[in-house]
Amino acid sequence: MNTSYCLRGSIVHTPLFGIMECIPDSYIVVINGRTAGLFSSLPLEYTDLPLYDYTGKIITPAFCDMHLHAPQYPMLGLGMDLQLLEWLNTYTFVTEQKFKDSEFARKVYSALAKKLVECGTTRVCMFSSIHYDATMILMEELENAGISGYVGKVNMDRNSPDYLLETTQESIEQTRRWIEESKKRFTHISPIITPRFTPSCTDELMEALGKFSQEYDLPIQSHLSENTDECAWVRELCPDCPQYWESYEKRGLFNSRTIMAHCVYSNFAEREAMRKHGVWVAHCPDSNSNLSSGIAPVRKMLREGLSVALGSDIAGGAEISMLKVVGQAIRVSKLRYLKSDKAEDFLTVAEALYLATSAGQEFFGEKAGFAVGNEFHALVFDDSALPPTDIINLQERMERLIYLADSSAIVDRFACKKL
Amino acid sequence: MNTSYCLRGSIVHTPLFGIMECIPDSYIVVINGRTAGLFSSLPLEYTDLPLYDYTGKIITPAFCDMHLHAPQYPMLGLGMDLQLLEWLNTYTFVTEQKFKDSEFARKVYSALAKKLVECGTTRVCMFSSIHYDATMILMEELENAGISGYVGKVNMDRNSPDYLLETTQESIEQTRRWIEESKKRFTHISPIITPRFTPSCTDELMEALGKFSQEYDLPIQSHLSENTDECAWVRELCPDCPQYWESYEKRGLFNSRTIMAHCVYSNFAEREAMRKHGVWVAHCPDSNSNLSSGIAPVRKMLREGLSVALGSDIAGGAEISMLKVVGQAIRVSKLRYLKSDKAEDFLTVAEALYLATSAGQEFFGEKAGFAVGNEFHALVFDDSALPPTDIINLQERMERLIYLADSSAIVDRFACKKL
Repeated sequence: MNTSYCLRGSIVHTPLFGIMECIPDSYIVVINGRTAGLFSSLPLEYTDLPLYDYTGKIITPAFCDMHLHAPQYPMLGLGMDLQLLEWLNTYTFVTEQKFKDSEFARKVYSALAKKLVECGTTRVCMFSSIHYDATMILMEELENAGISGYVGKVNMDRNSPDYLLETTQESIEQTRRWIEESKKRFTHISPIITPRFTPSCTDELMEALGKFSQEYDLPIQSHLSENTDECAWVRELCPDCPQYWESYEKRGLFNSRTIMAHCVYSNFAEREAMRKHGVWVAHCPDSNSNLSSGIAPVRKMLREGLSVALGSDIAGGAEISMLKVVGQAIRVSKLRYLKSDKAEDFLTVAEALYLATSAGQEFFGEKAGFAVGNEFHALVFDDSALPPTDIINLQERMERLIYLADSSAIVDRFACKKL
Repeated sequence: MNTSYCLRGSIVHTPLFGIMECIPDSYIVVINGRTAGLFSSLPLEYTDLPLYDYTGKIITPAFCDMHLHAPQYPMLGLGMDLQLLEWLNTYTFVTEQKFKDSEFARKVYSALAKKLVECGTTRVCMFSSIHYDATMILMEELENAGISGYVGKVNMDRNSPDYLLETTQESIEQTRRWIEESKKRFTHISPIITPRFTPSCTDELMEALGKFSQEYDLPIQSHLSENTDECAWVRELCPDCPQYWESYEKRGLFNSRTIMAHCVYSNFAEREAMRKHGVWVAHCPDSNSNLSSGIAPVRKMLREGLSVALGSDIAGGAEISMLKVVGQAIRVSKLRYLKSDKAEDFLTVAEALYLATSAGQEFFGEKAGFAVGNEFHALVFDDSALPPTDIINLQERMERLIYLADSSAIVDRFACKKL
């Protein structure tokens, strides 16, 4: 498979938060799967490389989905009239337990991997279920589909239905086995430590997970301050932790390689703790609306210096396409802007696009946009089927794609190699 | 064209607000384009009619889009980072003036009509622009595509850019000509009186429009209380009207055949006036988020006894598919539910579906759902390409369609005849 080539087309990317750089009719050179440069005309030294000619089309970085639950794919769009804890009990846990069946897991996860690629998501930070086998199948299906990123076997040893409950010992043993095995077997998909959330994990398990994170040098993902009932429950469960975040911090699960989903109810003290520890926020606007959770103070977080990226949070979110999640992030930010009497700005198109591409790249250790040296993850959009218009520059074309395009507008995908 | 036939399939409709009736594997009989009955097995007398067999698929009423601007279709998804008055001046008026060119109008309106049918919208309550010719072209394209409903030539004789400003006399004359001509020429598309909004129309013009509505027995559409700046402007322009709605009422434009878009800032007194006069609300959740307008108090309106239906409001709304508008109506209602400290309920799937189908049918003088005697406007959905699942009844299948389907899931459309 040749991983060195050139692309010609109009380039749109977000090298800085708030800056959408639009470069009409240019070239990107990719050497060994990594961006080697952007050029207005093709340098002589690269003219022998294969050229993908996308003249008239738009080339953008591919999407990073920084929070989603793979085993909830079969219940996408279901139970949306419920709220978090009721929804977990009625739909989510019932669905997740089906993944003890490897055949079911294979069927769902191959469909999911295909769907993600179709939607232009080439990097993920993803929850699996508690099941070892299903988690390995998920990692394999993602890797085979060309997707990179992190997948976590979920840990749950308390406050969960019997059919989805591990003993502390089991959970620890299976987690070690999964880490060691998956580190050996996969190249582009790596393990991430994944306590479901504080209510699902005993202190003993949390402590073991914190140690695994250190021992194997692994990132961490979990949930934080999504819903008021959940926050109250954590206060009850952890009388020694005045704030929710401390239940993670005290076990070594709260650092610059941690990404916490939601943070809708993170007050200033919690946000300050996140900033100091370098903890990331996975903002999931669609899920937070669907489950009547609220609107996370994203603009405030960004101004305070927190790192934020976007997640679909399927199946709390019903939109698996990050194009749609970008649209929802903008919409809810405008409602929050109004609610704050216009004190908190809303997210612009350029800012939200950054959160869906560059921010995720940075969590994976890369630079923003099509920076030289980055793994080349890109999408090619054809916007010719959008409504007839004649008032439009490249920036407006990108805005239109965000609001109007579905995956059928994505005509090619790259993730180190051409997919 | 045969307009009598039977359909077999699973039927989902909303005969009452809040009730989604789900009837697995049944029959609908259509005689001369009107619903003659729903049957669990096909009565003998109808067995000679042509049968469309949609076994395994879902048959629902087609969508009514009760507020949209046809000449804004070329700017769909553009300028969304602006607010109402700025957006009107930067994008909207510039786009609308292009419709003085009939060739441009033909190109856009034929594409729009095709797109509406593709998305399953078979009835509309629609704004054109000020232009007579383009409005006739729009009506013709909709009628030819099989769409029914109301289209309004827009009136604007003040506070508008020169290139989009009529004299009062012109506006009155062109409106009379358009009403008379279009009443003659079209069967399924009729004229609706359409002052753009109070700031765009002098009292003299408003009075003439009120009289046209009476003389020709025509319904009325306009905008009301969308945005706080707009509300302040109307207070300034109409010192004799303590409330925005009175600027319409005093000219005979505020009655049970009036549908007002938005009403985000309609306070109790304004809502009470609407209720007493029987005025309808076209709720446009996507637009109200995009343009940072706010969230209309829809649940409150419904509880107070107002009539509400849904509109896409393209291009303030970026979603032309009413499936997506239903989803957005539910999402924003949940954010309003939270903002009200859970005092105002959110819209359930069943309720929002009613607003997108049955409510519009009622504005057009029909009964809710697939009532006997209604013009038969229906969609056939194939949900087999949605994610693999096995926990799903007919109600859940419909919920999933609302959240996940795009127009590719609509495999057939009926609007009196098969389209």
